[in-house]
Amino acid sequence: MRLRNKPWAKTLIAQNPQWLVEAKDRTQIEWDQRFQKRQPLHIEVGSGKGQFVIQMAQAFPEINFVAVEVQEAAVAMILKKQVALQLPNLQILYANGAELTDFFMPHTIATIYLNFSDPWPKTRHEKRRLTYRSFLKQYQTLLDVEGRIEFKTDNRGLFEYSLVSFSQYGLILDFVSLDLHHDTRVTFNIETEYETKFTQKGQPIYQVKAHFKQD
Amino acid sequence: MRLRNKPWAKTLIAQNPQWLVEAKDRTQIEWDQRFQKRQPLHIEVGSGKGQFVIQMAQAFPEINFVAVEVQEAAVAMILKKQVALQLPNLQILYANGAELTDFFMPHTIATIYLNFSDPWPKTRHEKRRLTYRSFLKQYQTLLDVEGRIEFKTDNRGLFEYSLVSFSQYGLILDFVSLDLHHDTRVTFNIETEYETKFTQKGQPIYQVKAHFKQD
Repeated sequence: MRLRNKPWAKTLIAQNPQWLVEAKDRTQIEWDQRFQKRQPLHIEVGSGKGQFVIQMAQAFPEINFVAVEVQEAAVAMILKKQVALQLPNLQILYANGAELTDFFMPHTIATIYLNFSDPWPKTRHEKRRLTYRSFLKQYQTLLDVEGRIEFKTDNRGLFEYSLVSFSQYGLILDFVSLDLHHDTRVTFNIETEYETKFTQKGQPIYQVKAHFKQD
Repeated sequence: MRLRNKPWAKTLIAQNPQWLVEAKDRTQIEWDQRFQKRQPLHIEVGSGKGQFVIQMAQAFPEINFVAVEVQEAAVAMILKKQVALQLPNLQILYANGAELTDFFMPHTIATIYLNFSDPWPKTRHEKRRLTYRSFLKQYQTLLDVEGRIEFKTDNRGLFEYSLVSFSQYGLILDFVSLDLHHDTRVTFNIETEYETKFTQKGQPIYQVKAHFKQD
């Protein structure tokens, strides 16, 4: 989803370095020093307006969250909410999801969330999908031994593609739901903005949780 | 699907040993000698009335097919059709799918089809599902190096379960469709009786193709 530019975005971003890291500050970030507590780190790649990551940070104060988002207007929306909420376990990374290894040390992340990523349906755009093998390689580098990926989408083609891409790369599937909102096994689920919208239209939401096989 | 008993089943089965092997004949069957030609072997576990396996045998004369079915009335239905068609590349095995290794030598099968298997939705019946790990172990023993499993179902719960069961056992997914009959990638598909019925009701058909990872 491309958001309209926010004229106030640049100023807000410049004024709040305590909640946000910009890609231009490219060095390994000392995440532990940016959070109030040393505790497990979860990141969401492509946070949009931040509904999911903010509600997760509120629900799990014992986990640190980083919202990764590349679009300035979306970053500004998350940041605006965070300036109001001041959640000590939430940071924002204004950067491209393809450059994660520039910002996180290997094997420091416990969970990576991919929510309603751009499906890039054309075959020639396969490499841009966040579940393409070059991205999976990044996630493998970043996740710790017990680490896992949790992926949700409403896009059937992207989900089919991702299950196969995960499996071929060597990820082991731990959980699959083909209709998350009518799945009796699911007792807890924080929705993204998209998810709320699509679910109201009656479309099924797909979810997979997976981990990398240890050699 | 449980079929009504056919009073003529036993006689038909007794009279046609050239097309059928009964479980009571439990010895390793010389399948090559039962077919007209030595060629790759595909089996369907749970053939029902046989629509799928018969149409496959007709479409692929260069492949030998074995229809495995445990229910007498269903076996009789397949056999009745085969007596009329006399397909040289189709044999029927009247046996339980849990006993496949009693009837086939290791690594002699190229493809195993599982179509609309009983979902056994209760957790306590998990072990009866044809995609439970004890069955996967059998398939692994039976399939040759390039061998694969092709599984279709309309049952969401069974499909979700099977994707995870496959992955955890060490199968690699090669293809996943969450709506086989509206999947632009699919150009060829032979339907089972069930499939025709469910598709007419507008229900999606799920399919996965997978192979065992070689050590």
